[in-house]
Amino acid sequence: MKAEIISVGTEILLGEILNTDAQFLSAELSEIGIDVYHQCVVGDNEKRLAAAVDEALSRSDIVIASGGLGPTPDDITKEVVAKQMGEALVMHEESLARIRQYFAKTGRVMTKNNEKQAMLPEHCIVLPNNNGTAPGCIIEKNGKAAIVLPGPPSELTRMFTESVKPYLQKRSMSKLYTKTLHIFGIGESNVASELTELMEKSADPTVAPSAKTGEVYLRLATKARTEEEAMKKMSDTEALIRSKFGRYIYSDDGKNFPETVFGKLLLKKITLSCAESCTGGLIAKTITDFPGSSEIFSEGIVTYSNEAKKKYLGVRAETLDSFGAVSNQTAREMADGIRKASGSCIGVCTTGIAGPGGGTDEKPVGTVFIGISSPAGTEVRKLSLSGDRGKIRYLTTLNVFALINEIIDKIY
Amino acid sequence: MKAEIISVGTEILLGEILNTDAQFLSAELSEIGIDVYHQCVVGDNEKRLAAAVDEALSRSDIVIASGGLGPTPDDITKEVVAKQMGEALVMHEESLARIRQYFAKTGRVMTKNNEKQAMLPEHCIVLPNNNGTAPGCIIEKNGKAAIVLPGPPSELTRMFTESVKPYLQKRSMSKLYTKTLHIFGIGESNVASELTELMEKSADPTVAPSAKTGEVYLRLATKARTEEEAMKKMSDTEALIRSKFGRYIYSDDGKNFPETVFGKLLLKKITLSCAESCTGGLIAKTITDFPGSSEIFSEGIVTYSNEAKKKYLGVRAETLDSFGAVSNQTAREMADGIRKASGSCIGVCTTGIAGPGGGTDEKPVGTVFIGISSPAGTEVRKLSLSGDRGKIRYLTTLNVFALINEIIDKIY
Repeated sequence: MKAEIISVGTEILLGEILNTDAQFLSAELSEIGIDVYHQCVVGDNEKRLAAAVDEALSRSDIVIASGGLGPTPDDITKEVVAKQMGEALVMHEESLARIRQYFAKTGRVMTKNNEKQAMLPEHCIVLPNNNGTAPGCIIEKNGKAAIVLPGPPSELTRMFTESVKPYLQKRSMSKLYTKTLHIFGIGESNVASELTELMEKSADPTVAPSAKTGEVYLRLATKARTEEEAMKKMSDTEALIRSKFGRYIYSDDGKNFPETVFGKLLLKKITLSCAESCTGGLIAKTITDFPGSSEIFSEGIVTYSNEAKKKYLGVRAETLDSFGAVSNQTAREMADGIRKASGSCIGVCTTGIAGPGGGTDEKPVGTVFIGISSPAGTEVRKLSLSGDRGKIRYLTTLNVFALINEIIDKIY
Repeated sequence: MKAEIISVGTEILLGEILNTDAQFLSAELSEIGIDVYHQCVVGDNEKRLAAAVDEALSRSDIVIASGGLGPTPDDITKEVVAKQMGEALVMHEESLARIRQYFAKTGRVMTKNNEKQAMLPEHCIVLPNNNGTAPGCIIEKNGKAAIVLPGPPSELTRMFTESVKPYLQKRSMSKLYTKTLHIFGIGESNVASELTELMEKSADPTVAPSAKTGEVYLRLATKARTEEEAMKKMSDTEALIRSKFGRYIYSDDGKNFPETVFGKLLLKKITLSCAESCTGGLIAKTITDFPGSSEIFSEGIVTYSNEAKKKYLGVRAETLDSFGAVSNQTAREMADGIRKASGSCIGVCTTGIAGPGGGTDEKPVGTVFIGISSPAGTEVRKLSLSGDRGKIRYLTTLNVFALINEIIDKIY
């Protein structure tokens, strides 16, 4: 079964708001095994909306139009969809009563405009709005269904979950199951070149990589009637992928890399502290993003200046003078220094040139040293990163989490 | 001039990612006076993508296709767009050399697959990728232009800003001039209710508020042939707005609030340090996001535990015992402590309950104390914030920058 989504709203075309409704609807439809091959966005314009509705109805079984159910004259979605489906609008007394009730309850004044929201196609399934005033509706004709939903996310998501999803589940036979393997430490092209054959041959499950900054997500997908059936269909392919990339796959439960490493620290009660130069607090910020971080994280120091590196971490003046702040030697002393100062199990550090200024021939922008001090000793790695300041700082952070991950797997 | 946006990516149709690229492009196009009447999303499917490209070319002057420039066989955007524009792909040696360089620099292995990324339409404007491997391109034919951009937001935004925007600005005749007043310290509904009449009456310039987390942006827009003409058209309206909200307006040059305050610190060479508990490094990270921050920022300490507050900042055990870590008294000692430890002109601190756990009846989640120590003395403010952990940490950070801003205006 095929569906497509028409988002109606000039504010989306102006870039004023993110189209989160389309993402929500796509994810929900995918989960119940309905294919979405097209999304589109049009403004509050009768001609363009009518054309979009006709085109969508010509190629899909289900058309979902969202937005434009408000009380103002430029809200025309329901009117246009009904017209293209050959339906007239009539007053729906039950909805009018609900809208009156809603206004009474919230203590607001109902205007004449709001009555328009209770006008619905003569033959339709009415979708009650439990988070607002405008009801939605489903118009069925010639085996196709046009579904009209309000735009505000809180209204749309609730109406979809309560009324539309059960309706579609009844229409749809099988469900799409997916499993996404998160990979760090190897690029998308390397993953792809190793998997080209598999990606081309494997029609079921499908295998698709996608690149995130510094990471690759590899998604397996198959349609099945039960989760058990789906897992069975995916298991051979997954095993093959794991045999090739096992050591780079860090999660299959949707958690990102820092969150996965944080979970291990928390589980094993391994305390961590950080001394940051080029990342300037990003590592501490990333750890403390997670609730419960106080259990394993007591402190971090942003030692941006040489003075601060000496004062808080005991980095020696000779080291800074001889090798510079961005060096293997300084990183080593920083990692040892923060571990000692904090008394944590693991101390990590970063020192590098995030740019745009500060690069030299010998140490260009993107030169970063990261260090880790643990019961297994002290280790420093040199990174040569590309990108702007934000990307270099982010990739440095991911690499520090990779180093922590290795040490956890090795000694804890 | 009309443009439309085709986002290519099965992951968008599956609802796995939000289509932030389309929002970015729409906002940018709107800013330079180019109308966007359609956005659409198609998967990595040759037939559907070709149909979408043809349809877009039939009704718009500019078609921007983003995503699907990766190295894998299912990345087909460039191939399809070139074909629909009647162009053959040939190897672009300069791009190939850039890709080789990119891999050499980042120490990763370049695969045969990546060479495909350097294949470009025979006649096109090549758009260099300064944040990744895949170049983009502009194909011009019959007065229309098809623009192909990579999907990863860091690559797309940079390529658009550096290459595509200047190209489009040259093509566009009358330009949309905008001026956005950034407001902090007053809510969107208050701004809107004060401005209702102005917003309804003023057709040119238009006045539109939009809410960001903790901030309100108020955008004035008008089409004109020169900047001078535009500024003249906007001046009365701007003066009226400034007479109402002057003290809340912190910038009109596109800089966000932290960046504006950072600019003042840098200009006046006022050094700053921070001691963070609930923000966990976010303030240090925010300051060091800006190039040149080392001139005014030498250090920051994330004192997450009570022990760390005592050790690095000299917060007294009695204070922590009597009043707790989240208190006016602790904040006062933290602010003084970091200023003393660092020797900076200004010391700021945060201590609070970011949630989701840790709240009590007396100090619910969202209770935060922020402090500032400066030559003007020490001041502590209590905030009662709403939202999730991320929002509370972010709003705390904005409020700290507001406090810094006040002190700068008062004594420097």
